[in-house]
Amino acid sequence: MLKHSNIDAVLKALAEPTRREILERLTQGPAGVSQLAEPFNMSLAAVVQHLQVLEECGLIKTEKIGRVRTCRIEPGGLGGLAQWIADRRIPAERRLDRLGDLLIEMDPEN
Amino acid sequence: MLKHSNIDAVLKALAEPTRREILERLTQGPAGVSQLAEPFNMSLAAVVQHLQVLEECGLIKTEKIGRVRTCRIEPGGLGGLAQWIADRRIPAERRLDRLGDLLIEMDPEN
Repeated sequence: MLKHSNIDAVLKALAEPTRREILERLTQGPAGVSQLAEPFNMSLAAVVQHLQVLEECGLIKTEKIGRVRTCRIEPGGLGGLAQWIADRRIPAERRLDRLGDLLIEMDPEN
Repeated sequence: MLKHSNIDAVLKALAEPTRREILERLTQGPAGVSQLAEPFNMSLAAVVQHLQVLEECGLIKTEKIGRVRTCRIEPGGLGGLAQWIADRRIPAERRLDRLGDLLIEMDPEN
């Protein structure tokens, strides 16, 4: 599970459309840097920079074997954000349930 | 459910710590603009700007009654992002399960 302080880094990483597309590509399987750069028509340097942001916040892992850097999704990397959202959805949804109950109670036809 | 195209706006809105804190405050219940501005030591104008971003992407709703604008959480506003994350977590986690199965099969003690 990611630390709460990481939520900021994960959200900032995901707020960039190219980084979301890279992540999306990696959910299909590991890929090399040049493979990732291809569909984006971007320089390798720009892709490497995006990969660094994704790796620093724990969403992906990269590993250099010889001259090739392979990137893969970090399983559970989105877990912290999923939990953060779940924690914030529950109180609001709960309050809505209570409002629903109240409206049912107040319904004169009930 | 939010449209997929809204994911970008929601992530950009949440990537700003102050907006997350405003959202956090609103999960406790509705609040007026000046009430929201207080803990942040921010100008009303700055808070209004953050509220606008949160409202435009469907995370909150604001309503002006007379001279007072009340802000409340939009139930389900985080639903689109939660779904987006769930959709991206499953393939990676599934692949990890398959790897686990493979390792069990390959285990000579099995």
